[in-house]
Amino acid sequence: MSGSAGGVPVAVAWSGGADGQLELLDQTRLPGSVEWIACRDVASVIEAIRSLRVRGAPAIGIAGAYGVVVAAGEAIRMGLGPAEARKHVLAAAELLAEARPTAVNLRWAVERVCRVVGAESAGDSGATAADLARSSLAAAVAIHEEDRRLCTAIGRHGADILPDGDILTHCNTGALATGGDGTALAVITTAWADGRRFGVWADETRPLFQGARLTAWELVQRGIPVTVLVDSAAGHLLATGRIGACVVGADRITANGDTANKIGTYGLAVLAAAHGVPFYVAAPSSTFDLAITDGGQIPIEHRDPAEVKSPWGHVVAPQGAGAFNPAFDVTPARLIRGIITERGVISPVTEARVAMVLGGG
Amino acid sequence: MSGSAGGVPVAVAWSGGADGQLELLDQTRLPGSVEWIACRDVASVIEAIRSLRVRGAPAIGIAGAYGVVVAAGEAIRMGLGPAEARKHVLAAAELLAEARPTAVNLRWAVERVCRVVGAESAGDSGATAADLARSSLAAAVAIHEEDRRLCTAIGRHGADILPDGDILTHCNTGALATGGDGTALAVITTAWADGRRFGVWADETRPLFQGARLTAWELVQRGIPVTVLVDSAAGHLLATGRIGACVVGADRITANGDTANKIGTYGLAVLAAAHGVPFYVAAPSSTFDLAITDGGQIPIEHRDPAEVKSPWGHVVAPQGAGAFNPAFDVTPARLIRGIITERGVISPVTEARVAMVLGGG
Repeated sequence: MSGSAGGVPVAVAWSGGADGQLELLDQTRLPGSVEWIACRDVASVIEAIRSLRVRGAPAIGIAGAYGVVVAAGEAIRMGLGPAEARKHVLAAAELLAEARPTAVNLRWAVERVCRVVGAESAGDSGATAADLARSSLAAAVAIHEEDRRLCTAIGRHGADILPDGDILTHCNTGALATGGDGTALAVITTAWADGRRFGVWADETRPLFQGARLTAWELVQRGIPVTVLVDSAAGHLLATGRIGACVVGADRITANGDTANKIGTYGLAVLAAAHGVPFYVAAPSSTFDLAITDGGQIPIEHRDPAEVKSPWGHVVAPQGAGAFNPAFDVTPARLIRGIITERGVISPVTEARVAMVLGGG
Repeated sequence: MSGSAGGVPVAVAWSGGADGQLELLDQTRLPGSVEWIACRDVASVIEAIRSLRVRGAPAIGIAGAYGVVVAAGEAIRMGLGPAEARKHVLAAAELLAEARPTAVNLRWAVERVCRVVGAESAGDSGATAADLARSSLAAAVAIHEEDRRLCTAIGRHGADILPDGDILTHCNTGALATGGDGTALAVITTAWADGRRFGVWADETRPLFQGARLTAWELVQRGIPVTVLVDSAAGHLLATGRIGACVVGADRITANGDTANKIGTYGLAVLAAAHGVPFYVAAPSSTFDLAITDGGQIPIEHRDPAEVKSPWGHVVAPQGAGAFNPAFDVTPARLIRGIITERGVISPVTEARVAMVLGGG
């Protein structure tokens, strides 16, 4: 595989029939090298998820779902009978679901495939390993297709409201993170496919450089002009007046529209407001956590100081210095012009409008 | 040498008498390794300046001044007579002054030492190479001492007005960049020496990591607690409410107080204003360019895209992607609570107040 079909990057693919293999684009090697990993055993799927070879909540979920199919393929090759095959697949699924504990999409997708497997092999149904492989593949493909449709709908709604001018984005929210064209990046690529023309500016997104490594790579594959900048240059870029809109993704959105996303999103939103540039969030409705009323209640995950102090093992900060490494920050709803979901655009961003758009799905 | 005397880091030192040597702390090796370079020939001084082993405008100027003394030492060891010695020293000085063309302090300092050499060896004075070495050393030491006094005065004025709370800074403005304790960092270390207690937060300062590599190292040497963060985490940090003030340096300040400084300074100033946190600039009066009325007229230097796309040769952005790499941005005077100079603090930052404080020196 090439990592892109007709310029459209692909992160996760299934190859062959029910006894086929899961293929993952190794995102840790991008952009220097485009390499695919073929997974024919569950251990290699788990390793790929743990090592961030596949990342982005939707893409991880899809990989986990296909991982259950891989487990059924193992059962076929081991010659397991119906009862042993069922046991093997469900045990493997539990390991898959735990590969990244905080990734809610992963457990959700794996459990959804397991329900199909459980129903297929309930009681003395006599469902063989091959039967389980077929049914789990159908369930995984359905999850993948659903995500693709969500991305397409988000892209369409967002492109329809995108202002003229260049676009500034942060982190990676594209095909590499999802089963389709992405969320914020789908807005950009859909507008481009509509014939709109603009430049895209990608914050590099320290500490893990997902903007430089992944977003820029995706856009180059698609032939869309992209320019990378250090995160702190966004203020100067906005001051030049060439940016028509900022579009970013979301990790969690509260009932009032406050949005947790990759560290740096909040600072970008403040700068956009200071320059009168509209700031959009793009995310599927599943990103909303309506049990939480506002962003002050979102716990912020703090990650390994080594991501800040020694990127790729290169020491940039001395021993004896601390490191502050929050994974996310919270952008208050008042700084967001609109939240683009598969059900439509929430704008203005208020609790009532959130309830209306999400409730109308 | 250890790179620090009693916890105070030192970037540039002269060792021995007039035929001694220039010693430079190799800042490209920090913080992983503390290594001194001994320069007994002009070529190695020029190489150190070009390769950023010594950086920071005042420190470069001081190194250049001592470089002229090194040239006189070469003339002694080559056994040159008075006329040849003079010719050798002035030719070497021209090469030194050109080692970094945009560093105005470098040419200024080298030319100041050359005037002494020129006066010493004018006409048939018969001044020997040893005479030139002695007089140029005295001139270089005077430049070094002057800079040390400027730093001390800036630190004192700044510490006197520094609010309570933790302090956030950007880039390196300390002993490593100057002949003394620095500018913005001198404010911080002077307040600490006064017995004030606070935490210091250092933006890592992409693309070249001067905050993580150099500022954090200086503060660790001094036993002042320091925490490094990626530049884009500053917004989230300010939102926590623990920052009492931001203090940064300056590369150029216009007549109305608009300030050009390391990329990212402007974004930080906007965020500080959004959180009601006072934002201070610390710089010697020589940083003011009163011929320029406002920041819109300051040309912004754009540097090598490789600094963004492949730090230390590690490729983080794909071929085909552009890179936007402005070295500086401009912070408008309205976002600056005060400009701390060796002559006092300019606050509020207005054209009239700038003229008053600078004119009163």
